[in-house]
Amino acid sequence: MAKLAFLGLGNMGLAMAENLLKAGHSLTVYNRTAAKAAPLQALGALVAATPAEAARGAEAAFTMVTDDEALLHLSTGPDGLLAGLAPGAVHVSCSTVGPGTTARLAEAHAVHGSQFVAAPVFGKPDAAAAAKLWVGLAGPADARRRVRPWLEPLGQGVYEFGDDPAAANVVKLCGNFMLGAAIEAMAEAFTLAEKSGVGRQPLYEFLVNTLFNCPVYHNYGRLIASKSYRPVGALPAVIRKDFRLVLDHAQQQAVPMPLAQLVHNRLTTTVARHETDVDWTAFARRVSEDAGLEA
Amino acid sequence: MAKLAFLGLGNMGLAMAENLLKAGHSLTVYNRTAAKAAPLQALGALVAATPAEAARGAEAAFTMVTDDEALLHLSTGPDGLLAGLAPGAVHVSCSTVGPGTTARLAEAHAVHGSQFVAAPVFGKPDAAAAAKLWVGLAGPADARRRVRPWLEPLGQGVYEFGDDPAAANVVKLCGNFMLGAAIEAMAEAFTLAEKSGVGRQPLYEFLVNTLFNCPVYHNYGRLIASKSYRPVGALPAVIRKDFRLVLDHAQQQAVPMPLAQLVHNRLTTTVARHETDVDWTAFARRVSEDAGLEA
Amino acid sequence: MAKLAFLGLGNMGLAMAENLLKAGHSLTVYNRTAAKAAPLQALGALVAATPAEAARGAEAAFTMVTDDEALLHLSTGPDGLLAGLAPGAVHVSCSTVGPGTTARLAEAHAVHGSQFVAAPVFGKPDAAAAAKLWVGLAGPADARRRVRPWLEPLGQGVYEFGDDPAAANVVKLCGNFMLGAAIEAMAEAFTLAEKSGVGRQPLYEFLVNTLFNCPVYHNYGRLIASKSYRPVGALPAVIRKDFRLVLDHAQQQAVPMPLAQLVHNRLTTTVARHETDVDWTAFARRVSEDAGLEA
Amino acid sequence: MAKLAFLGLGNMGLAMAENLLKAGHSLTVYNRTAAKAAPLQALGALVAATPAEAARGAEAAFTMVTDDEALLHLSTGPDGLLAGLAPGAVHVSCSTVGPGTTARLAEAHAVHGSQFVAAPVFGKPDAAAAAKLWVGLAGPADARRRVRPWLEPLGQGVYEFGDDPAAANVVKLCGNFMLGAAIEAMAEAFTLAEKSGVGRQPLYEFLVNTLFNCPVYHNYGRLIASKSYRPVGALPAVIRKDFRLVLDHAQQQAVPMPLAQLVHNRLTTTVARHETDVDWTAFARRVSEDAGLEA
Repeated sequence: MAKLAFLGLGNMGLAMAENLLKAGHSLTVYNRTAAKAAPLQALGALVAATPAEAARGAEAAFTMVTDDEALLHLSTGPDGLLAGLAPGAVHVSCSTVGPGTTARLAEAHAVHGSQFVAAPVFGKPDAAAAAKLWVGLAGPADARRRVRPWLEPLGQGVYEFGDDPAAANVVKLCGNFMLGAAIEAMAEAFTLAEKSGVGRQPLYEFLVNTLFNCPVYHNYGRLIASKSYRPVGALPAVIRKDFRLVLDHAQQQAVPMPLAQLVHNRLTTTVARHETDVDWTAFARRVSEDAGLEA
Repeated sequence: MAKLAFLGLGNMGLAMAENLLKAGHSLTVYNRTAAKAAPLQALGALVAATPAEAARGAEAAFTMVTDDEALLHLSTGPDGLLAGLAPGAVHVSCSTVGPGTTARLAEAHAVHGSQFVAAPVFGKPDAAAAAKLWVGLAGPADARRRVRPWLEPLGQGVYEFGDDPAAANVVKLCGNFMLGAAIEAMAEAFTLAEKSGVGRQPLYEFLVNTLFNCPVYHNYGRLIASKSYRPVGALPAVIRKDFRLVLDHAQQQAVPMPLAQLVHNRLTTTVARHETDVDWTAFARRVSEDAGLEA
Repeated sequence: MAKLAFLGLGNMGLAMAENLLKAGHSLTVYNRTAAKAAPLQALGALVAATPAEAARGAEAAFTMVTDDEALLHLSTGPDGLLAGLAPGAVHVSCSTVGPGTTARLAEAHAVHGSQFVAAPVFGKPDAAAAAKLWVGLAGPADARRRVRPWLEPLGQGVYEFGDDPAAANVVKLCGNFMLGAAIEAMAEAFTLAEKSGVGRQPLYEFLVNTLFNCPVYHNYGRLIASKSYRPVGALPAVIRKDFRLVLDHAQQQAVPMPLAQLVHNRLTTTVARHETDVDWTAFARRVSEDAGLEA
Repeated sequence: MAKLAFLGLGNMGLAMAENLLKAGHSLTVYNRTAAKAAPLQALGALVAATPAEAARGAEAAFTMVTDDEALLHLSTGPDGLLAGLAPGAVHVSCSTVGPGTTARLAEAHAVHGSQFVAAPVFGKPDAAAAAKLWVGLAGPADARRRVRPWLEPLGQGVYEFGDDPAAANVVKLCGNFMLGAAIEAMAEAFTLAEKSGVGRQPLYEFLVNTLFNCPVYHNYGRLIASKSYRPVGALPAVIRKDFRLVLDHAQQQAVPMPLAQLVHNRLTTTVARHETDVDWTAFARRVSEDAGLEA
């Protein structure tokens, strides 16, 4: 069993940290709002006052925070993770951030003598709690070899994408983009079905039992068919941030992505209208409104 | 066992007609190019010289042709299906056509005293041969009740959409639209992955083993990841016609469908460039080209 | 001076017919709702009871109606224009219709022995009244030569587009498309300026006094800058019909027009929401709404 | 007459600096590649070795460089403009940069005790040489009052946009966006006309003599109608940068701009294909290609 650190205890991080504890590891945790750490403390985790303190003595420090800025601050800010992490230890970065941020962090770790892997995860908090995440992993081969056994108990499978840690971020961004694309597709199809008198629900049931028989369509489709965009899996503003990362990266790589732009626009409108208490799937309302239907 | 007719013996129709024969029905077939009927004749089918002759005496006449115009001509033209079909018999229309065409045919049958159901099918010719189609069915309840047992052996499931036959066409068009949407999504994601150094294949394998684990993504994804758009399941021009039907219907129902427009545009370019020996998935090339990659 | 007929006395047709009278021609007019003809009668026009009667004896019959269907009915229906028009006389078709409709009418006239030119006009009713229209003209050269002197007093200039009358329709559709494109561009720019604190009006004034110093930007821009989409020059539903013609023609010619689709979508939403008492420029509201602003 | 500095002697800057000299001002200039300054030296300008040296003693320092990074480096880097500019003097920033960059510079000047105005210009190098630019101006009122007389001889008009210098950048970005929108509109219309047999040139001539009778349509339209995208006014990569600034700002302001995205995509493809010896208008080729025409 290893001595590990976990930094960032939102809904996702909390569940992942708990699964590391359950796997028998010794865990020190950190969260900006320390109160969030209480349930883990009850399970035996130590609670650190700073990122540096959490990372001190750990073989690996996992991070799971909101966005690029938070990750950079947590990692390279004063009393940050890098200030505490031992040379040779590994930073396992699970947040959804841009490849550029990962590149900057990888460089900072190289200077520091520590290692850096990106290990973004797919799945909502309930999947994290149930250890049903899908994990992408990229970074130096030996670092991947060391951290893989710690990642496996967190999910259903770990997929590796080579030595460049940024590759795992690209995969994560592509996955989120494809979820948004599927939502847009259903929103357009269900709206056409509704206005044609077919109804949203019959089309939904047909599709998810035939061609599109996979959880993504089942789960998101249920919200779109019913027009009830709850419970909240992820907020529109959070996924809008992910789409901005997709588009920023696409801009750098010179890849026009009109479908990603379309979904980003839908999310922008959703955020601009302050629809803050709904799942991000609620951008499907825009399609209904454009067709003159009540949202 | 019933006395049935089957009109339109392209790759799809031929396989479906053969399955009706195998189910033990007595079958009269018609095709514009009569030679196509030979294999069915060898299995016991009668070959008619005209649509009217094929329909004469049949309890139900199935049609499976290329487009709206062909269906209208076959059905209501001189020596057409309607000229031979007995009052009370049912026309089972399996082609992918617009709801408006179905409405016109339903009206013609009402005048004639016969019945009309739409029963469009999902699946490629190999699925038709393997009796793995998915069938949508709509039309008057008693007609649906009569034809359903004949349709079941053609596929894996028959889904009903009420009394208005046009509803089944809407479902078929929505399904094809959603396939195109999934292709566009993969094309954009795989292109970003390629230019980012992740590669198309690793992203494909991750996605279809995790979030998008359904045949649509497996099968179309393989073509898009490999950039080998063969074998040809359906030609770009054929599916472009389907997307035109989607957009025409969306225009009538006042439903903006920007994603359907995007895919239609991709198919238009593919057709305008005379890429005629590839599967329709090849519209994914447009995404590569837009990013400056060799097609 | 010539003996002419004018059929279709909406706001545009009425003004054009009056200018033909003022030019000294002898004029017989027809309108479905005969009362509309009263002001012309007061100026000396004869009022016919049917299109055929109006066309009888005329050297040329002008038509100005709402859409393709109305034009076909007026021209080729019972007691239609063709039933009255003398062989050798010319049908001058001024409506905004699709090239396909023009092709069908040209063929009907060829059979009949009469001639057909398309002469669509650019300008609102006030421009028609002030004889400030721009006229596109296409059709057989001798027919163009004959009708040109009658068209010139209606506007500021007559532009010829060759022997195929459909060419003039294409030009008209392209022109309307470009107006919509300019409106969309201003709507996006003004909305960005508004949310950035620059304000719509200052940006408008800068643009129309510098780079975009032409009446289109001045006039439409004023409505968009002020968000007051009145007075009504043309209804959203009418111009939406024009964009449908653009897209139908683009589909036939295999030309992807994403900008035309965007504007068509905006107009569809405007119509789907029953915004019927505003100028078509009001589709700019969609841009404001998408940015979370009050319409 | 004033003592001024001009930093950044590309095609635009060179022409503007020359006009300041011609207006009788005493001018010190700086350019990274000093050789570019020779013609100005011949006219009496002093040539400085660093930005700081150029700014020293100047009442106002004008800057005209390629992008945000260049401007920040020139201004705040070692031996930068700020290191030389006297408290109370004004930095007149003419480059096309993002509002965020302007905000950062304004803050740096506030700290320094100097003033900052943004004065982006519209027009190509030939317009700059002919003193036919249009100038937007924003910043503190007294600074605007001081610099306005120096800006006026550079163009046909100076338009003010209030106290926040970033407002002028927004106006500049909106203007460039609208140029791109007009180009896309013409490209789509001309391509439809070409494939319809009307021809690009006749449509162009009609439009620019009637509805769209302003220089933008005349000048850009000529390139698009002829498909000869030369001479180069601005490179695709340069204007693509401007569109990125538009979209970044729109993202921050939460304004979906689908037309700006469309043009950005066209430019991205143009850059990704290494079309580097053409005017940016050449993105119109993408529309031709999408319709199956030779570029």
